[in-house]
Amino acid sequence: MIRFENDYAEGAHPKILQQLVATNEEQSPGYGMDEHSEKARAYIKKAIADEQADIHFLVGGTQTNTTVIASILRPHQGVIAATTGHIAVHETGAIEATGHKVLTLPSDDGKLTATQVKACIEGHWQDSTHEHMVQPGIVYISHPTENGTTYSKAELTALSDVCREYGLPLFLDGARLGYGLVAQDSDLSLAEIAKLCDVFYIGGTKMGALFGEAVVIVNPAYQKDFRYMIKQRGGLLAKGRLLGIQFETLFEDQLYMDISHHAVDMAMLIRQAFIDKGFDLRYDSKTNQQFPILPNSLLATLGEKYSFSIWEAFDDQHTVVRFCTSWATKKENVDRLIEDIQQLA
Amino acid sequence: MIRFENDYAEGAHPKILQQLVATNEEQSPGYGMDEHSEKARAYIKKAIADEQADIHFLVGGTQTNTTVIASILRPHQGVIAATTGHIAVHETGAIEATGHKVLTLPSDDGKLTATQVKACIEGHWQDSTHEHMVQPGIVYISHPTENGTTYSKAELTALSDVCREYGLPLFLDGARLGYGLVAQDSDLSLAEIAKLCDVFYIGGTKMGALFGEAVVIVNPAYQKDFRYMIKQRGGLLAKGRLLGIQFETLFEDQLYMDISHHAVDMAMLIRQAFIDKGFDLRYDSKTNQQFPILPNSLLATLGEKYSFSIWEAFDDQHTVVRFCTSWATKKENVDRLIEDIQQLA
Amino acid sequence: MIRFENDYAEGAHPKILQQLVATNEEQSPGYGMDEHSEKARAYIKKAIADEQADIHFLVGGTQTNTTVIASILRPHQGVIAATTGHIAVHETGAIEATGHKVLTLPSDDGKLTATQVKACIEGHWQDSTHEHMVQPGIVYISHPTENGTTYSKAELTALSDVCREYGLPLFLDGARLGYGLVAQDSDLSLAEIAKLCDVFYIGGTKMGALFGEAVVIVNPAYQKDFRYMIKQRGGLLAKGRLLGIQFETLFEDQLYMDISHHAVDMAMLIRQAFIDKGFDLRYDSKTNQQFPILPNSLLATLGEKYSFSIWEAFDDQHTVVRFCTSWATKKENVDRLIEDIQQLA
Amino acid sequence: MIRFENDYAEGAHPKILQQLVATNEEQSPGYGMDEHSEKARAYIKKAIADEQADIHFLVGGTQTNTTVIASILRPHQGVIAATTGHIAVHETGAIEATGHKVLTLPSDDGKLTATQVKACIEGHWQDSTHEHMVQPGIVYISHPTENGTTYSKAELTALSDVCREYGLPLFLDGARLGYGLVAQDSDLSLAEIAKLCDVFYIGGTKMGALFGEAVVIVNPAYQKDFRYMIKQRGGLLAKGRLLGIQFETLFEDQLYMDISHHAVDMAMLIRQAFIDKGFDLRYDSKTNQQFPILPNSLLATLGEKYSFSIWEAFDDQHTVVRFCTSWATKKENVDRLIEDIQQLA
Repeated sequence: MIRFENDYAEGAHPKILQQLVATNEEQSPGYGMDEHSEKARAYIKKAIADEQADIHFLVGGTQTNTTVIASILRPHQGVIAATTGHIAVHETGAIEATGHKVLTLPSDDGKLTATQVKACIEGHWQDSTHEHMVQPGIVYISHPTENGTTYSKAELTALSDVCREYGLPLFLDGARLGYGLVAQDSDLSLAEIAKLCDVFYIGGTKMGALFGEAVVIVNPAYQKDFRYMIKQRGGLLAKGRLLGIQFETLFEDQLYMDISHHAVDMAMLIRQAFIDKGFDLRYDSKTNQQFPILPNSLLATLGEKYSFSIWEAFDDQHTVVRFCTSWATKKENVDRLIEDIQQLA
Repeated sequence: MIRFENDYAEGAHPKILQQLVATNEEQSPGYGMDEHSEKARAYIKKAIADEQADIHFLVGGTQTNTTVIASILRPHQGVIAATTGHIAVHETGAIEATGHKVLTLPSDDGKLTATQVKACIEGHWQDSTHEHMVQPGIVYISHPTENGTTYSKAELTALSDVCREYGLPLFLDGARLGYGLVAQDSDLSLAEIAKLCDVFYIGGTKMGALFGEAVVIVNPAYQKDFRYMIKQRGGLLAKGRLLGIQFETLFEDQLYMDISHHAVDMAMLIRQAFIDKGFDLRYDSKTNQQFPILPNSLLATLGEKYSFSIWEAFDDQHTVVRFCTSWATKKENVDRLIEDIQQLA
Repeated sequence: MIRFENDYAEGAHPKILQQLVATNEEQSPGYGMDEHSEKARAYIKKAIADEQADIHFLVGGTQTNTTVIASILRPHQGVIAATTGHIAVHETGAIEATGHKVLTLPSDDGKLTATQVKACIEGHWQDSTHEHMVQPGIVYISHPTENGTTYSKAELTALSDVCREYGLPLFLDGARLGYGLVAQDSDLSLAEIAKLCDVFYIGGTKMGALFGEAVVIVNPAYQKDFRYMIKQRGGLLAKGRLLGIQFETLFEDQLYMDISHHAVDMAMLIRQAFIDKGFDLRYDSKTNQQFPILPNSLLATLGEKYSFSIWEAFDDQHTVVRFCTSWATKKENVDRLIEDIQQLA
Repeated sequence: MIRFENDYAEGAHPKILQQLVATNEEQSPGYGMDEHSEKARAYIKKAIADEQADIHFLVGGTQTNTTVIASILRPHQGVIAATTGHIAVHETGAIEATGHKVLTLPSDDGKLTATQVKACIEGHWQDSTHEHMVQPGIVYISHPTENGTTYSKAELTALSDVCREYGLPLFLDGARLGYGLVAQDSDLSLAEIAKLCDVFYIGGTKMGALFGEAVVIVNPAYQKDFRYMIKQRGGLLAKGRLLGIQFETLFEDQLYMDISHHAVDMAMLIRQAFIDKGFDLRYDSKTNQQFPILPNSLLATLGEKYSFSIWEAFDDQHTVVRFCTSWATKKENVDRLIEDIQQLA
């Protein structure tokens, strides 16, 4: 079985493992105060061209989203997100468990528009009973989204402008950030994201690390006491250097971008194969996740050799499936898959 | 600088790293449903002689304590703990952040007694205003405690009896469990702990793993839906196999016990050196943490070559410090320390 | 200005005030342990034909919904409600503030159907990632709904059956319960509601009391320790007898039903006047709230003498408004309103 | 049975009831936006000599404490209180249910000292692991305290100074505020309290109202969006005018102070009777609660005609009991009690 079902099926990129082995016997202080974490922070600050940003390393995505959002909101405020947003669907109510409502806006491709967000915020203030309703307090987006789509610079700028107009922070979930940075349909650089967002995170788990996410708090208004929050939410790793070493490795050279390019290159080959064979794609993703719409009759055939995710029923006869690539995706396996796609009857 | 300040200064035991490297390219399903996690669970079930227990792997201690306690309590209930308990002091209010009060009982050595717990529970029910007070809902202990002390079989049995008499679960925090299992002053085996507690966890982070804690839910009443809780609290690692591989390695042979023995052996040498030199110990610890009371005048001298924790002021002239050992503590460094202790003026 | 904008514009029914005055100097124990509260509980038990039910008096609706729901759910569970449900819209995230998600299902008239609820629950369990999603844990409905509509006996029975099939409690918000009991389109008695629901509340605030809601916990599984919950959520009134006296007055004779009949009779007159004049109604309400769709050009005219609520825009030319009646609505004012409706150009 | 067991055994002061009756048929907007609430706010602003303060009316004390504290704190912060503080003991963990720890400081008489609070705050910041601990975020005191004791102007000024030095708001629980204002051992006026505190509340429930507490937010930094908080915590009464009418009545003339004087005068008579008879007092209270230490042998005798609270065991032979007075305490009943105290053998 060759697995394309997700982007976290293997361990870590070999360079990361090498570094963990090489540094294993070093003695270092705990909780992220070690030299590797310091270096990783320095590399990231350079990459985003912002020396004033606060950078923290957490273990996983749900924890990161929860810690950031709960740190910023007051009790009566909620977080605006797409109906498909990870925090709205797939975190077992982690945001609500911190006391806050997720205010969902409809989205087909996983993105929010500036117009939608503006209407939501204005709608709140114009409602005469607004004190009886949850006040929008932060805007959450993903780049790329759960559906593999990305924001353009113009789109993110428009969102950022609305947020700043109304005084709401913009928080970007970058669990798969690298894949968005190299996507053909996004012209956003890491430095531009840092300028347009108040907080964002650079995903590690799905980007070649064993685990770990790097939170970047750009806006000083939200930097205060964040380490307390991490500790309270269970994210302050005793051996914090493990996170430092991984992000140091990802960012000291071009590894993070190299991994991103490889995965997206592989995904584009798979995408083209499905298109060439005449299959439609559910979302127009230029990132490492591809969502072909397959006749139900072919699922079993393809499933004999390859694992992939069943995303949703498209109609009675068709199903949307998901194929993912990662740093670990082998060209030879992609070639084999493409051949088998071509053979599908 | 030779570090004795904590038991998480290095990476992981080399065998664990080897296994992470060896399995790195394997493809496996996420979130702890992989074969390594399965094997680890099987080994632990065997070690505790209980096939019905539910076993889950979480990332860190604060997260584990929070997830277990919040999963069990109803909103009006609190957790009984020693004033020195980790959840009462050093988790930035993580328990309270889930809505529950920590009901602290005084303790000098970090242990709770059955008598104390019984009095606390009975006191609640005898108070005519008890509905205006937080109801005791679970009992939390650590073994070994924060102070290195351990429960004997008789003590834990008495606590367990009180808990069962009043219908409260007994939860044992085993962040350093191995060190307690091999301590001379505890006659408790892992299987006995599993019989006497309703839930406990087997620490990994401070016991040779990179990170990770294995929660054992012995009492079926508390097993239901626990994976939802882990996800909600941010503890369901995407690459869950990382935890599986580590606990598989720790428990397939005697590695967990070997690590425990080594660390405690090293600690006992240090302990004896302090005693021989005429220093008192703040707590009578037979585990990997030692708490000598040193004249303030000697702190700087000893601090030149060795790092250790300042625990608390003992009096105007003396300070309690903490020396820790671990799997990584080298005999040669201990020998050097002992020599230097002997030289102290 | 004659006010029809809500059903809480005046104080209390005169009989209630009389009783508060008559009993004012009595000395009684606090927190609902007084004789009046006891009597009120006895009257209600008789009215619902269930001696085993637990009955508690709380101050207001948001508090009641929050206390009931938070008392029942475990942390990973949420409450199913209509998108229009009071808890989903108009309680400033009070449910989320207790840690729980409101799982909304679409509804035009404010009602949930058994089919919808069944599909929601089954959908959860059939989703292979259900542990990453909030588990449905209780079903919340209102009778009458926010839109004045009611459940028939057959509809409530079907909902109750689905809830029992899947082990979820059914909770009915009866903020305006009396108006539902006397509505022509509902054949549900109080005793039948008590048989079909696990918990419900009998509204006082909008039904002639100064304030107060009577929670009826029918299912013994949810009765335990509820007074702790009330206290924790700030609902345990020191002078609890105030609630007892009010519900005693409402239920010792037919006052609760008399008030209900009066308000609905008045509402039916208003309803007919709008229909006769050729206006459509947004919801087919047979209760004390009426939702005519008026041309925007007439709003100002009608607003000169009468206050009513702007509910929502219907289209560019029309607006849905709300007229409410209550125990205090005077026939002479209704007559005047009807005359003015007839005069509308 | 003549009741001295608490200060909420009766209904409301007759003038308040009269006003509720007189205004019963008035129609007014809900949720505290009515004219009576406006007038009550104006009277209170005049009484505290601060036109900029925000004033809100809530239903009860637990709700008020919870709403204020949760509105101000960030998630990692806790509230400093005396071990005897109402929020620490008798609110069923309501503060913790909002996610915050109560950081208790020892107190025999129920008061906190500036020195204690300063040491607590400095202790936090000096601890190198402070990010692992709950950060002090607000200081909660009661005036009078649970034990009937009061702060002098010098004491409250010292507390206020410490709070301002460290940037923590000072919150004063005035559930029995009037009794403190007229106590011989306090030289604090309402206006001085308003100058020294950031937030406080003027109790109604125990001061002659049916129910209700008036929150005064003096410091503009904490005024924003407070009505959302009240709604979320279930404290925004639909018929908000009930609170307005009561506080209007209490503050338009001298009623609040008259009630206070009467109750304290009655309490001083009882106090003197116990002293004259040779009994010690547990706390030196000059307010409406008196805590004589009685031989256990006399409890039954006194309990035949009078109800009072059992406060705590003093020693094997003696018990601390509590006698309360209120607006409703009749001089003739106090005289009878005094006679019976004199007769005690």
